[in-house]
Amino acid sequence: MINNKQRIKYFPYLDKIQTPEQAALLIKNKDVLGVSGFTKAGDSKTVLPQFAKRALHEDLKVTVLSGASLGYDTDADLAKNGALYKRMPFQADPTLRKSINSHEVLYVDQHLGQTADMLQKIDKFKINIAIIEAVSITDEGFIVPTTSVGNSPIFADNADQIIIEINTTFPESLAGIHDVKLLKKQPNREIIPVLESDSRIGDPYIRIDPNKVVAIVFTKVPDSPAVIADPDEKTTAISNHILKFLEKEVEAGRLTESLLPLQAGIGKTANAILSGFTNSKFKNLTMYSEVLQDSTFELFDSGKLLFASASSITVTESCSNKIFSNFEKYKEKLLLRPQNISNAAEVISRLGVIGINTAIEVDIYGNVNSTHIAGTKMMNGIGGSGDFARNGYLSIFACPSISKEGRISHVVPMVAHTDHTEHDVDILVTEQGLADLRGLAPVERARLIIENCVHPDYKDQLLTYFEEAYALGGQTPHILEKAFSWHTMLKDKGTMKVEELVDNLH
Amino acid sequence: MINNKQRIKYFPYLDKIQTPEQAALLIKNKDVLGVSGFTKAGDSKTVLPQFAKRALHEDLKVTVLSGASLGYDTDADLAKNGALYKRMPFQADPTLRKSINSHEVLYVDQHLGQTADMLQKIDKFKINIAIIEAVSITDEGFIVPTTSVGNSPIFADNADQIIIEINTTFPESLAGIHDVKLLKKQPNREIIPVLESDSRIGDPYIRIDPNKVVAIVFTKVPDSPAVIADPDEKTTAISNHILKFLEKEVEAGRLTESLLPLQAGIGKTANAILSGFTNSKFKNLTMYSEVLQDSTFELFDSGKLLFASASSITVTESCSNKIFSNFEKYKEKLLLRPQNISNAAEVISRLGVIGINTAIEVDIYGNVNSTHIAGTKMMNGIGGSGDFARNGYLSIFACPSISKEGRISHVVPMVAHTDHTEHDVDILVTEQGLADLRGLAPVERARLIIENCVHPDYKDQLLTYFEEAYALGGQTPHILEKAFSWHTMLKDKGTMKVEELVDNLH
Repeated sequence: MINNKQRIKYFPYLDKIQTPEQAALLIKNKDVLGVSGFTKAGDSKTVLPQFAKRALHEDLKVTVLSGASLGYDTDADLAKNGALYKRMPFQADPTLRKSINSHEVLYVDQHLGQTADMLQKIDKFKINIAIIEAVSITDEGFIVPTTSVGNSPIFADNADQIIIEINTTFPESLAGIHDVKLLKKQPNREIIPVLESDSRIGDPYIRIDPNKVVAIVFTKVPDSPAVIADPDEKTTAISNHILKFLEKEVEAGRLTESLLPLQAGIGKTANAILSGFTNSKFKNLTMYSEVLQDSTFELFDSGKLLFASASSITVTESCSNKIFSNFEKYKEKLLLRPQNISNAAEVISRLGVIGINTAIEVDIYGNVNSTHIAGTKMMNGIGGSGDFARNGYLSIFACPSISKEGRISHVVPMVAHTDHTEHDVDILVTEQGLADLRGLAPVERARLIIENCVHPDYKDQLLTYFEEAYALGGQTPHILEKAFSWHTMLKDKGTMKVEELVDNLH
Repeated sequence: MINNKQRIKYFPYLDKIQTPEQAALLIKNKDVLGVSGFTKAGDSKTVLPQFAKRALHEDLKVTVLSGASLGYDTDADLAKNGALYKRMPFQADPTLRKSINSHEVLYVDQHLGQTADMLQKIDKFKINIAIIEAVSITDEGFIVPTTSVGNSPIFADNADQIIIEINTTFPESLAGIHDVKLLKKQPNREIIPVLESDSRIGDPYIRIDPNKVVAIVFTKVPDSPAVIADPDEKTTAISNHILKFLEKEVEAGRLTESLLPLQAGIGKTANAILSGFTNSKFKNLTMYSEVLQDSTFELFDSGKLLFASASSITVTESCSNKIFSNFEKYKEKLLLRPQNISNAAEVISRLGVIGINTAIEVDIYGNVNSTHIAGTKMMNGIGGSGDFARNGYLSIFACPSISKEGRISHVVPMVAHTDHTEHDVDILVTEQGLADLRGLAPVERARLIIENCVHPDYKDQLLTYFEEAYALGGQTPHILEKAFSWHTMLKDKGTMKVEELVDNLH
C-alpha cells in the first residue's frame, strides 16, 4: 500500500487508513456519490475505479455528482459496468455518452456554477458518500485539495460520510493555491467579495467535520493528462480574428491593453485562441476562468499573464512536468476556487470577464448549440459556457465554418438545440471571420454572420434560406418546414451541401 | 401651459421651461433617444408623442432606447409615423410589433438587466437626448423620477442633452421611493450591496450634470393604466398549483412560510398567481421584482406583504387612485430601482428570488418560448424573464395548456424559438398541473410534463411523438422532420390536433 503518513497532520485519521478496495466497499447500491474532479483534474484515482470494478460483478447502481469530467476510463468503466443510475453535472466521455444516448444512464446537464445551489435547494441528491482527492490533511482534519476544487466543498458539507484519497504524486507545495468558501443558502447568502482575479476570500483548505471521514486512502496516480492538438491553420485564423477585434476595441478606447479577465473553454480551439495572446500586443493580462490549460502557462512564461484564477488545472503531460517540477515559479500566480465561485454570475459580471467558448453549431441569428448532435444526441455537456456567456463583459463563441471535407456547415439556418440564445452571444467567429453582433437586430445579425463567418461553399445556400424567410416577414425570419432541412439532408444524403447533391444527380 | 414651478428647486432650470412642442423640436433626424418609461410607467407623456407627430410630416427616423414598454399610443404613433429606425430593449405594442415583423423597424430584444451595461461597452448607441419624466427637481438640479426608474440613470449619464418632463399628476410625495445608483464600467464595477429587498444603496434621485438640461416641460397626463383581466378558472388553477407546491416546500423544510423574495412577470396570469397569495398560508412576504402590478397592493392590503422592490409601478386606474390618494400608507414599503439593479444577476442570486414568468409555449423538455409566434413573429420582448429565470432560487414558468378552443396546445414537441433553455426552467405549470423538473434528465422531464401539464386532448399525441423519438435514442430525443409539425399543421390546417383532422376527413 502506498503510504505517506506525514501528509496527515490530524492523527485520529491514521486509524482510518484503508486500501482503495476496502474503501470502495463502503459504497452501497443506490448511493448518491459526490466526487472530486473537474475536467479530469483532482478526481478519485482509485476508490471510484475500484467501485466500478465491483459493479462488474455486483448489482450496484449509484448517482454520481462531480465537479465536471473525470479522468480517463473512470466514467467509461462506471458506464460500461452498469454502475450509473444518474450522472451530473457534466461529462465528456465517449463511452458514457453512448450509455446516455441509449438511455442506460440518466444525465442531468447543468450550468457548472449551479450544482452547489441545487444541493442546497433540494434534498433528492443528499450525498451519502463524498470521495475527495487531497494533497494533504491539515492538523484540524481539513482537506487540502489537489489540482481542482470543483464541487468538493459542497459535497463534503452535504455528505453523510467522506472518503479522502491522498495523492502523493502531487507535491505538498500545492497547499496554498486553493481559496475555499462555502456559501450559505438563501436568505443568508452573503456577498461574494471577489473584486479582482486574485482576491482571496476563504481558506486554503476544505473545512469538514472530521467525524464524517470513514476512510483515508493513499494513491500515487497522476491526473489523466490532457491531449491537446497543436494549433492548426483554422484555429490560428480564429485566434487572429479575435486578437484583431480586441486590438480594435483597445484602439477605440473601449478596453485597455490589459483587457479584462479572460475565460476560455476547454479543448483545442479555446487553447489555440489563448495561445495566440502570447504574441499579441496585450500585456498584464489576467484570467478568471474555470479551467487552466497549457496556454495559461505559456502566457505566464511569456510574461503576458499576471494572474489566473480557475477551478482546476488540466494540462498535458509535458506541461504538468514543467509546472510541478518548478511549482514555486507559478504558485503565487494561481488560485483555485470552488466552481460556484469561479463561475458565479455575481463575480463574472462584476469583473467583466471576456468569455471565449466553442460551439458545435451556430445559426444565422447567433443562437448557439454547444451540446447536441442533430438536436438529439449528447456530445459534451454545457459546462460553464453559459455562466460566462450570460454574465461576462463579452461573450465570444468560436467554431470552424465547415468540417468533414465540407459536408457539414457549422453555421446553419436554425440550431437543432439551443444552449445559448442570441441574447447571450456577442461575437461569433470562424476561420472565415468575425461578426460583432452587439446591438444588432436578428435580421442584421443574419446578414453579418453570413457575410463574415460562413464558408464560401455555403454562403449562397444560407443566404437563399434567409432571403426566402425574410420575404415572409418576422423579427427572426424562419421557414419552419425548412429550418432543419440541412440537418435532415446530412442524415439522409451525408452532406448539408445542396450543390453536391445536384452535382451527383448529373 | 401647465406650470407648477415650485416643483423645481434648482432655479437655473426656470429659464429652460418650454412647451412640449418646442422641446420636441430639439430632436434631430438620426438621433439616439434614451427615454424613461418601464411597462407604461413613468414614460414621456408629451415630448415623445409630440415628436411622433412631427414625424408624420417630416423625414425623421430615430433610435429609441427605453426602460421597457411605453404608454398607450407612443410606440404605436412612433411606428405608424415612420419615426423609428431602431427600438430596444423591449416593446409590447401591437402596432409597433407589426412594423417590426414587416421589417420597417429594427428591434433589438434584450435582457432588461443588460441594456445599461451595453451602453457602457459600445458607443454606437451614444444617447443624443434623454427624455426623462420627473415628479420634481432637487435643489442641486437632480431628477426625482415618477413611477419608474428603468434605464433613466444610465441614459442621463450617457446623454449629451436632457429634456425633463415634470408630471404634476403625481404627488410630490413620490419623492423618496427611488433608490438610484449608477454602476461603474468594469474593471471598476463595484459590489451591489443589496442584501434584502429593502436595502437602500443609493440616492433618492438621479444625479445629472445640470448643464446638460436643454428643456423642462410640464405635463399633467397620468400613466396609461394597466388593463388586467380578472383571474379566471385557468389562472386561478395555475395559482393554486403554485401555492400548493410552495406549501409542500415549506412543509419539507426547504423554505420558510415567508418564502423568499417574489418576482412576477407582467400580465393577467402573473397577476392572478400573485393575487393567490392573498389567501395563502404564507406571511411576511417580500418582493424583489421588476414591475409591481395591482396584486402587489392587494398583498399589502391583506397584510401578507412586508416590502416590495421593483423598477416600476404599473397598475389599473382604480388601483392607481387607491395608491396615490393614500400614498403614505404604501410609501415606506416601496422602493424603485434602476433596472440593472432590480434585474441584476448578482442580487437575484444572492437574495434567492422566486421568479414567476409566463410562456407563449413550452416543450416537452422544458424549454420556453416567451417571445415569438411560430418561431418567427415577435410578440412581446423577453423582458426581464431571463434575468430572474437564470439566477433565481426557483424559476417558475406558467401558461395555459391550450387556447383557441383547443386548436393550440401550449406544450409542443419542440419550441419554435428558445428564450429560456431547460437549464433555466425549474417548474412548469398549466391549469392541468405542475411539473417540478429540478434534478431531472430530459427524458424524465418529458414524461412528467406530459403527465402533469398537457391538456388531455393532446396527451396521447405528445406521448406518441416522445415515444417515437425516444426509441431512436438520444439525451433529448427529437425527430427533426416532425419537431415543428404541430406548428406547420396549425398554419396549414388551423389546428395542432391530429384527431380533429381525422374527424374532419370522415
